[in-house]
Amino acid sequence: MKETMIYLLERPNLRDPVFVEGLPGIGLVGKLAADHLIQELNAVKFAELYSPHFMHQVLIKKNSVVELMKNEFYYWKNPNEKGRDLIIITGDQQVPPTDSPGHYEVVGKMLDFVQEFGVREIITMGGYQVPELQGEPKVLAAVTHEGLIEHYKAKLEGCQVEVIWREDEGGAIVGAAGLLLGMGKLRSMYGISLLGESLGYIVDPKAAKVVLSAVTKILGIEINMSALDERAKETEEILRKVQEMQRAMLEQSMPPQQEEEDRGYL
Amino acid sequence: MKETMIYLLERPNLRDPVFVEGLPGIGLVGKLAADHLIQELNAVKFAELYSPHFMHQVLIKKNSVVELMKNEFYYWKNPNEKGRDLIIITGDQQVPPTDSPGHYEVVGKMLDFVQEFGVREIITMGGYQVPELQGEPKVLAAVTHEGLIEHYKAKLEGCQVEVIWREDEGGAIVGAAGLLLGMGKLRSMYGISLLGESLGYIVDPKAAKVVLSAVTKILGIEINMSALDERAKETEEILRKVQEMQRAMLEQSMPPQQEEEDRGYL
Amino acid sequence: MKETMIYLLERPNLRDPVFVEGLPGIGLVGKLAADHLIQELNAVKFAELYSPHFMHQVLIKKNSVVELMKNEFYYWKNPNEKGRDLIIITGDQQVPPTDSPGHYEVVGKMLDFVQEFGVREIITMGGYQVPELQGEPKVLAAVTHEGLIEHYKAKLEGCQVEVIWREDEGGAIVGAAGLLLGMGKLRSMYGISLLGESLGYIVDPKAAKVVLSAVTKILGIEINMSALDERAKETEEILRKVQEMQRAMLEQSMPPQQEEEDRGYL
Amino acid sequence: MKETMIYLLERPNLRDPVFVEGLPGIGLVGKLAADHLIQELNAVKFAELYSPHFMHQVLIKKNSVVELMKNEFYYWKNPNEKGRDLIIITGDQQVPPTDSPGHYEVVGKMLDFVQEFGVREIITMGGYQVPELQGEPKVLAAVTHEGLIEHYKAKLEGCQVEVIWREDEGGAIVGAAGLLLGMGKLRSMYGISLLGESLGYIVDPKAAKVVLSAVTKILGIEINMSALDERAKETEEILRKVQEMQRAMLEQSMPPQQEEEDRGYL
Repeated sequence: MKETMIYLLERPNLRDPVFVEGLPGIGLVGKLAADHLIQELNAVKFAELYSPHFMHQVLIKKNSVVELMKNEFYYWKNPNEKGRDLIIITGDQQVPPTDSPGHYEVVGKMLDFVQEFGVREIITMGGYQVPELQGEPKVLAAVTHEGLIEHYKAKLEGCQVEVIWREDEGGAIVGAAGLLLGMGKLRSMYGISLLGESLGYIVDPKAAKVVLSAVTKILGIEINMSALDERAKETEEILRKVQEMQRAMLEQSMPPQQEEEDRGYL
Repeated sequence: MKETMIYLLERPNLRDPVFVEGLPGIGLVGKLAADHLIQELNAVKFAELYSPHFMHQVLIKKNSVVELMKNEFYYWKNPNEKGRDLIIITGDQQVPPTDSPGHYEVVGKMLDFVQEFGVREIITMGGYQVPELQGEPKVLAAVTHEGLIEHYKAKLEGCQVEVIWREDEGGAIVGAAGLLLGMGKLRSMYGISLLGESLGYIVDPKAAKVVLSAVTKILGIEINMSALDERAKETEEILRKVQEMQRAMLEQSMPPQQEEEDRGYL
Repeated sequence: MKETMIYLLERPNLRDPVFVEGLPGIGLVGKLAADHLIQELNAVKFAELYSPHFMHQVLIKKNSVVELMKNEFYYWKNPNEKGRDLIIITGDQQVPPTDSPGHYEVVGKMLDFVQEFGVREIITMGGYQVPELQGEPKVLAAVTHEGLIEHYKAKLEGCQVEVIWREDEGGAIVGAAGLLLGMGKLRSMYGISLLGESLGYIVDPKAAKVVLSAVTKILGIEINMSALDERAKETEEILRKVQEMQRAMLEQSMPPQQEEEDRGYL
Repeated sequence: MKETMIYLLERPNLRDPVFVEGLPGIGLVGKLAADHLIQELNAVKFAELYSPHFMHQVLIKKNSVVELMKNEFYYWKNPNEKGRDLIIITGDQQVPPTDSPGHYEVVGKMLDFVQEFGVREIITMGGYQVPELQGEPKVLAAVTHEGLIEHYKAKLEGCQVEVIWREDEGGAIVGAAGLLLGMGKLRSMYGISLLGESLGYIVDPKAAKVVLSAVTKILGIEINMSALDERAKETEEILRKVQEMQRAMLEQSMPPQQEEEDRGYL
């Protein structure tokens, strides 16, 4: 295998599909959101992506069955006849950070593939690392074209989640969540990235929930969040303990303020 | 040389051959097993694989003769007219762990090659790192398809070696032992990986023996293990000393329990 | 995306254009010089270069708009009918130093591209790291062919900046500033590299100014340096403080002389 | 530039040429030997090899002229009408050790190239790192085919230098000195590698001299070694001082014996 390959299991007929991405990254936020969305919508797997840029290993799944590292495409047919369908991607991993050309190759193949199904709009989901959380995690938004800001703001109206639109330049979105928009733009696609604030070093269903709340609002669909809520509660318990420890440590030895600039989002 | 290349020395006519892999990895388990199998069966070398992804060096062999790093294919004609023949691969090295695309390329070429000889079934051999051995080393099994578990269990009946079939998800098989199954599966091949428990930091003929016992049981052949037994005895002596040292160290400074999760097998 | 790609926005008709390069490197000297030149000349962007060898990320620009990492080509039409036009390249980054083949690929594409517009002469700009600055920063010059030295010396006559021409062999010019000349030479192009002395660890508009003074002298054009002067003054203030700290440290613990050989320029 | 390229400056007509390699490596032994051979024979440069796998930089040569990193091919027409001609390669660098595929590509291109001129025999030169030198440095020999040992031993008869032929397996020849033989062997070429004992951490003309003595003996030519002798004397002086320091340090803190196994040669 010299190139990233996509195995098609079924060729669905999709109506103006939106491509929603959620792959492993900071706090596993994107992947948790995508997996939950797939589960709640009963989305159907229709393609698998394999890449020589993924780890050279197989995972041992349930009952001692092995599988190559992969990403998976799911589709969802909108029951509303006027609604748009979805293609959702999730997976085991992204290309390692040491292999930039691999990232570009994999994301290029993803775009080639979804373009065949008529995708024009892309929504990417991920985490946005912050040193400390204050209240509910917020969601950072970034778009492919300036003209889209009002479009998405209008769609997000009434969303319970606080969405941040930065005016100043700065920061980067690393990995597929960024590249899909950047490379999609070169193909006349458009879209938005929604990144949930997360401490990053913990699997973070709470951040996944706020991101998914914003995404479903944009998509005009509603899903049950209770499974994610439950995992979030467990995590919150862990977070509280971690933060208590951190505060104890900070009080002892470090200044309370931390450098927030130049961090990468994923 | 820009690509992995296979030099064919002879084109044997093989009857439904099983492909058995044993390349260097944890405890050299796979390679020891493959080399012993080749020696005992008097298998015949018929092809050599060279790759630009191997180390950029030649090895100095006996009598100052140099040879490129390589993997070697052997075949064995089953004297039983109804039995299946074998293709066995062994070699100097695997692609270094920093070069995932190289691994995928090399394993892809191996599969291309054995497919020409009609291979449908693959058995991979390797080590499975554990922090401490209790009694005889066990063998971890993993298969390409869930439907194969009963098939292999039936073949393994009566095998003196304890074979473990994990039900829960977890862990990975790194390198050729994993990729051959994962990538073979995409070509409608099937098979099993058999990994012997090993401390990993020592050449481990004992683990190789238990793996080979399981493999020969599956293949329905019998081979003399005495050479491997002898090397195993020597190693056991070394292991005993190492373990004594470890225990002495552990008693002094560390808690006896160690983290066993998320380890990779090879 | 498997290869470096250049997107053409406009196809200008250029008269014997000189290709001027200024990409990020030591002290950001080259990029500052190129950006200032573009701004003062009101040069027009006409092409963008994207590469899988750049970081796998998008930058978040003003108003939450994302953009792939890129380099940008600008052109300037010389109002003097007998004068030569310019192509200027600037950008977000160079290929990381761990990826030499990526550097060669990107620079090769740049040369392919500018050759289409008739470029024969190349001027590259960058920083040249020194342990301490004495007086005004000097500019190190290096050329593609020995016969050019007198040519450029004549053009530089009257330039306020001290330009150094080393007679002895030694040192290297790392990255695009070097490769453009070295690879251009293989295509019968010619040119000069002008590297401003810089401490390197600080954004250095003062070094950019001396480089740009030499470059504009060679090009026979005049531009307003006041914006660069202003940034240089700010930096000088910072530099003074840094140098005071350094001197204080040196007096305490280190010999005043430092090894200057075998440093790379960029 | 996506691939290693060779620029031909002249197409000489060569009689059964022997290909002699001497590129930078341990103690610069191979390069010193090749450069000296070229100089004494007045060999003529006829081709340059450039590679995207070399460092992404230009070297600043005499009089501020830049040149891409390169390897150079020289030829020598044997004045003896029945004698064989030579192709000699030297250069600025080898591919960095982190890029094995780059090594294979470059060496493959070298072999493609010299094959066009009818090369069948290859002699590679390099250093062979030892922890301490005892008396004159010896030369380690290794060949492509066992049948060649007597052939080369006969040619080396009367050579003042002690040539070692190891009977036991072990060690490796890293880089072009090894790959040229290993890869040449796959093309029905044959040859020998001659590696001079060297401490490795110092430019070592003395080791270059013993290697070159053996090589010229094999080639049946005689060259003046005085320039190399002179550099060797200077180095010997330095070596004496280094060794005195080492002995002083060893006496204080380390056991005199060192591990010699598993070292790589270059």
